[in-house]
Amino acid sequence: MTASDLISFARGAPSLDIIDVEGLKAATDAALTEDPGGALGYGTAIGYPKLRKLLADRHGVAEEQVLVTNGSMQADAFLFDQLVVSGEPVVVERPTYDRTLLGLRERGAVVTPVSLATDGIDVDELAAALDGGLRPTFAHVIPNFQNPAGYTLSLAKRQRLLELAEQHDFIIFEDDPYVSIRFAGEPLPTMLELDGGKGRVVYASSFSKTVAPGVRIGYLVGPADLIAKVRVRATNTYISPNMFAQAVIYQFAASGGLDRSVAKVNAALAERVATLCSALEKHLPEAKFTAPEGGYFMWVELPEGVDVAQLLTAAEERGVTFVKGTDFLLEGGRSSLRMAYSGVRDDQIEEGVSRLADALKSLGVAAG
Amino acid sequence: MTASDLISFARGAPSLDIIDVEGLKAATDAALTEDPGGALGYGTAIGYPKLRKLLADRHGVAEEQVLVTNGSMQADAFLFDQLVVSGEPVVVERPTYDRTLLGLRERGAVVTPVSLATDGIDVDELAAALDGGLRPTFAHVIPNFQNPAGYTLSLAKRQRLLELAEQHDFIIFEDDPYVSIRFAGEPLPTMLELDGGKGRVVYASSFSKTVAPGVRIGYLVGPADLIAKVRVRATNTYISPNMFAQAVIYQFAASGGLDRSVAKVNAALAERVATLCSALEKHLPEAKFTAPEGGYFMWVELPEGVDVAQLLTAAEERGVTFVKGTDFLLEGGRSSLRMAYSGVRDDQIEEGVSRLADALKSLGVAAG
Repeated sequence: MTASDLISFARGAPSLDIIDVEGLKAATDAALTEDPGGALGYGTAIGYPKLRKLLADRHGVAEEQVLVTNGSMQADAFLFDQLVVSGEPVVVERPTYDRTLLGLRERGAVVTPVSLATDGIDVDELAAALDGGLRPTFAHVIPNFQNPAGYTLSLAKRQRLLELAEQHDFIIFEDDPYVSIRFAGEPLPTMLELDGGKGRVVYASSFSKTVAPGVRIGYLVGPADLIAKVRVRATNTYISPNMFAQAVIYQFAASGGLDRSVAKVNAALAERVATLCSALEKHLPEAKFTAPEGGYFMWVELPEGVDVAQLLTAAEERGVTFVKGTDFLLEGGRSSLRMAYSGVRDDQIEEGVSRLADALKSLGVAAG
Repeated sequence: MTASDLISFARGAPSLDIIDVEGLKAATDAALTEDPGGALGYGTAIGYPKLRKLLADRHGVAEEQVLVTNGSMQADAFLFDQLVVSGEPVVVERPTYDRTLLGLRERGAVVTPVSLATDGIDVDELAAALDGGLRPTFAHVIPNFQNPAGYTLSLAKRQRLLELAEQHDFIIFEDDPYVSIRFAGEPLPTMLELDGGKGRVVYASSFSKTVAPGVRIGYLVGPADLIAKVRVRATNTYISPNMFAQAVIYQFAASGGLDRSVAKVNAALAERVATLCSALEKHLPEAKFTAPEGGYFMWVELPEGVDVAQLLTAAEERGVTFVKGTDFLLEGGRSSLRMAYSGVRDDQIEEGVSRLADALKSLGVAAG
């Protein structure tokens, strides 16, 4: 088995066939022709001003509420540096993004997981904990097509979360990179919108899923005073983020390239999800999953006796890989896996699932 | 006086006329044609592999000793996070780059300034302090065309610094963004080279001065074990730096654009320095300065009675600006200014100096 034969359901990254390479060439030409000084000079830590304005308009907020960064993880890092108090609790979903857990732990936050259901974080469990005295600095929530679970927070739960934040005086960190990657069902309002400017929500998103990860552009939207504090941290860290890439993405978005790119990504991912679900039903009937309406990931639960670490070893021997559920949980997830369909071509999916089924068979675990 | 009339000797940034905009368009086209997956996908925290290799080859080190970052200030930040111990001393030059002082202070370093002469840091003063018990974590030195002074560390002092580092077991942080911007005199070996792989030197540089600041590409070279630790920090902060910009700069450098760009920048800056020196001699004969052989900056000392803060106010009223010497010193610098000639056109310089002379006259200070 050579590396080129490996079918990877592991990485939350788009395959090259759904990235608009020619559109980005044209956008670079436009950026360097129309605003070479802005694209190539030092900027300021708020990012490329026209891109900031475009994002402010999209979210219906003032420009002073937006800061564009080198990828959304860098935005998270600045925000965590600003908000996390060592020894104080931060609420996260269980499971959640492994790098979020790492970033919080590194800063001494007491990571406080709350169960995730198919319609999002368990607000009753959170309410009970708050009633019991929990005083989180903030709650980190990935509302759309959650990583790793693929689930989406319902409208009712979004509203309830905002009520809880108001009652118990904490911030909601709405981490929303997948919001535009919806290929089925109806979009829901963001908590940032529902909050109506009360300042309870800090919102983060990115162009990694809609255009390309290599341009490393993310952004924060939040109360102007908080954004001003984060801006100081950003200035002291790197003076300005990548002006060149941000000027290119501004041109790409302003010329309609972003909308075309999102449409192309969504059509491709819808097809891959359909193929993945059929393949699982055919080759791995013991797998339990909910077909996602968007995003990059599907959470798959295997019968309880399956040890996903053993399964991963057997799978990689057979030329297929994924991320173990245990990587996203402080405890549990031993029989779960995260399958990313963003980075595989549609024609690789059935073969990949068939290899996975073969790996499971090799473990000799009885179907549940 | 409108903003467009302002002649700025303040910012250490290149004017647009010395940036190769067309060359960068061509390099982008090449990067996105030859390696779209590498330019647009997630990379790893080491940076774009071909650019890392080019830099390793240029410095004669192994690839594992190089990490390419989002600008060299981000490299500094990672390095300071790794090396600075709160409450422990770090040696800096007096004066030095204001953002370096800020970054060190933020992390609790006991900033320990050592005098800077026209041939670099005073190694005898440093040796005496070391003999007196000073145990710095590292010494930060800008060896070529120092910011703000414009001075260059002599070969003898480079060798002496390495001896002191060896004897007293500290690291030299060789911060060298201006090394290629030499337009007179002979280049000197870096301390990284002189160290011969003993691991006493961590070296940082950037493409901001040779290509364009907006691409935000800096890099570190150092012992492989230290670079590996910094890599972990970089991964946890942003997964990967800007792959798109790094792929573009790799193509730009590999196709000869970097060498052409450096030649163009150096020719333009040599002309500006000559013009600036003549203008100072004509309009401000009381100013003391050493004509730089490279870099962006000239340090100018005015007679002792001049209060540079008052001068700056008077200067800005007359449409010229600079950075006060006091911004770079923990104490002193009250009659000194940093004049950057990188961001002004040659034809603006005499008018700018004439306005500055007028501002000085308005203060009514007698020439020294």
